[in-house]
Amino acid sequence: MKEAIRVGLLGFGTVGCGVYRMIHEHQEELFHRIGLPIQVEKILIRDIHKDRKIIMPDDLLTTDPEDIVNNPNIDVVIEVMGGMEETKELILRALRRRKHVITANKDLLALYSGELLSVASEYGCDLFYEASVGGGIPVLRSVVDGLSSDRIFKMMGIVNGTTNFILTKMTKEKISFEQALADAQALGFAEADPTSDIEGLDAARKMVILSTLGFSMKVSLEDLFIKGISTITPEDIDYADRFGYVIKLIGIARRDHGRVEISVEPAFISKDHPLASVNNEFNAIYIYGEGIGETMLYGPGAGQLPTATAVVSDLVAVAKNMRLGVTGKSALIPYNKKQLKNDEEIFVKYFLRLLVKDEAGSFAKLSALFAEKNISFEKLSQQPLKGKGMAEVVIITHQTTRKAFLSVLSQLRDLQMVYEIKSGYRVEGE
Amino acid sequence: MKEAIRVGLLGFGTVGCGVYRMIHEHQEELFHRIGLPIQVEKILIRDIHKDRKIIMPDDLLTTDPEDIVNNPNIDVVIEVMGGMEETKELILRALRRRKHVITANKDLLALYSGELLSVASEYGCDLFYEASVGGGIPVLRSVVDGLSSDRIFKMMGIVNGTTNFILTKMTKEKISFEQALADAQALGFAEADPTSDIEGLDAARKMVILSTLGFSMKVSLEDLFIKGISTITPEDIDYADRFGYVIKLIGIARRDHGRVEISVEPAFISKDHPLASVNNEFNAIYIYGEGIGETMLYGPGAGQLPTATAVVSDLVAVAKNMRLGVTGKSALIPYNKKQLKNDEEIFVKYFLRLLVKDEAGSFAKLSALFAEKNISFEKLSQQPLKGKGMAEVVIITHQTTRKAFLSVLSQLRDLQMVYEIKSGYRVEGE
Repeated sequence: MKEAIRVGLLGFGTVGCGVYRMIHEHQEELFHRIGLPIQVEKILIRDIHKDRKIIMPDDLLTTDPEDIVNNPNIDVVIEVMGGMEETKELILRALRRRKHVITANKDLLALYSGELLSVASEYGCDLFYEASVGGGIPVLRSVVDGLSSDRIFKMMGIVNGTTNFILTKMTKEKISFEQALADAQALGFAEADPTSDIEGLDAARKMVILSTLGFSMKVSLEDLFIKGISTITPEDIDYADRFGYVIKLIGIARRDHGRVEISVEPAFISKDHPLASVNNEFNAIYIYGEGIGETMLYGPGAGQLPTATAVVSDLVAVAKNMRLGVTGKSALIPYNKKQLKNDEEIFVKYFLRLLVKDEAGSFAKLSALFAEKNISFEKLSQQPLKGKGMAEVVIITHQTTRKAFLSVLSQLRDLQMVYEIKSGYRVEGE
Repeated sequence: MKEAIRVGLLGFGTVGCGVYRMIHEHQEELFHRIGLPIQVEKILIRDIHKDRKIIMPDDLLTTDPEDIVNNPNIDVVIEVMGGMEETKELILRALRRRKHVITANKDLLALYSGELLSVASEYGCDLFYEASVGGGIPVLRSVVDGLSSDRIFKMMGIVNGTTNFILTKMTKEKISFEQALADAQALGFAEADPTSDIEGLDAARKMVILSTLGFSMKVSLEDLFIKGISTITPEDIDYADRFGYVIKLIGIARRDHGRVEISVEPAFISKDHPLASVNNEFNAIYIYGEGIGETMLYGPGAGQLPTATAVVSDLVAVAKNMRLGVTGKSALIPYNKKQLKNDEEIFVKYFLRLLVKDEAGSFAKLSALFAEKNISFEKLSQQPLKGKGMAEVVIITHQTTRKAFLSVLSQLRDLQMVYEIKSGYRVEGE
């Protein structure tokens, strides 16, 4: 009979410390849920001399990963160190030593979840990763268990807190992207090198994980259309506002007749839609299913304790499985063949803003171009820019195919009467 | 080796038909999740001759519950017939015949979940009831699994779709409660006898189920403060709007230092709070935990397919447990002793509207009364009602104890200068 569930932590940064704290502060609740105490056996750190402000036994810390992945006393390895190839090797070695693994590492999962899950399953181990999407929001568990009976056809969400924080600041304070990014960095909501957040890569990794589970289809990062937020101007945000929208970095995964499209891009979201009021660093994921209709999960997408909540809830799940003797049975191997939509099958509404020559016939030419591709207008405004001989044209289209829109866009670029295409955005949430 | 998971349905109304449809329409997905087909073996109906618009084998239907609860071929009984004592007996008999049970019956669970769960556990059976709270929203599963590591200290939500529909109509169309109720009845959003919805009883039952799980404490209906919506006037709604609030029927469960308060009552919700924009028949539950901070689940609180989604997701969970041989292990027996707060421990903000004599000193007297009980004002407005010698006073207090507030209220009633106490509401969501 086991006396405790013994845990090894790979990494002791923000999330690692949160996990350690939560295991200690909630030990009574955890004991009631599991029936055994949880004991942290070893923690892998980089610098043994760093001041950590947490009081703990000295022999808990190690700089040698072998003390964890190769430690016969450890049942569960929690990976919160980040990183890619080296981390992957550590996880694989832990699994092969029949240790269950919990990870919050979305970068790793977006690339290697297939391989990791199959090794886990081969060795009868659990591999859980709730914290990799939506921080503390139990979104993966909702997709896998709560909606297990349903057929999900669309998932749409704000899955990156940093960019949502920046866009909220730009919207509320009417400041530039650069200023908002600097503020976010000063407040700790953006990293020194913010590229992976602001270029949409972090959100894209989460959409890969979410789509793989929700559609039971192994997709990869290359299957996504990805666009970041660094080119958004205060003018764009102002236009969105005037037409009844807010700009959000939105991950969209859609499935029709077994064929999917996945994208991460800044989009105009109707102010009436619940996602429009998800602000600051918060995340929210909208799920559309045939049975459920629509449901939304909202909460903190990052942060020490929210992320630790997801990690330790995974630990509870592993511990229960250990007690019941059913570890290694929870992984869902994707059973649908990957089928991606092409641009003719992707239906979208667009917002477009251009500067054109202000002369007779300009507008007729524009309209003809759109009509030719069967794109009709939902809203339209044309306004002369005084003294410049130019007019600004704003168009919101009805649904059209991405192919038709891209083709109109390239023709517009060739038209002499078009001075500049100022911006183009997908429109969602109506 | 089993060839199928065999199901018996008790009841074939709206939800029952939805469950039947979902089992058939999603059979491919369900097979992939479970590894076995699901087969509906028998359905209990009242009237065998009723036209049902679903084509099915004749021998599927029965009017004898014995054909289900006593049927050796049936593994899982799904109870969607409603009712109390008789239904409870059927469920108990099914459990004692070692059949797993799934129910959407919140009335039954609010009263008897303790007894039912202990019989289920005694006979090694699963008893799941996700559909009993929040319809299709996977809220119970999120509380039990997704947030299993956290210490939940508050749950607040809109858990009754009928009253939310009525209040949304009253707010948007500025109509009376009676008119809005009649509209809701005409549209099928309220029953012919709407008492249990509009008097808050339905919401209260859901809060009992939610609190028992979230606080791991067996509470009962009598522990709740319950107030319905039938006395809300368009004037109240208008005042709420002017002060930056909307009125919602809110279930609140709060725990501090192990002591809890649970209530269902109409409350002023700040327009900035996400619950304020949950409209029509939608439900949403806000959960506050020490780790997660705050998280919200939003979705359809009722309806054929959403509710069926929750029921069939429970069925997937039971089926997985059957395959793994771990049924009867998921029930959480409440481990915290019931400790209820008294009125001195319940801290609340209030909105209060009164008609007072419009004369010198009136206001000083009022203020003195509140000051004596240590209740301070956050907002205040006094306005003369022309030609009536009366003034209308509107007060929003800072946080105070329920005890202090009730005591002021009773003293106000005794004051000669107070003509009428027009309304009083709890204020939440700031």
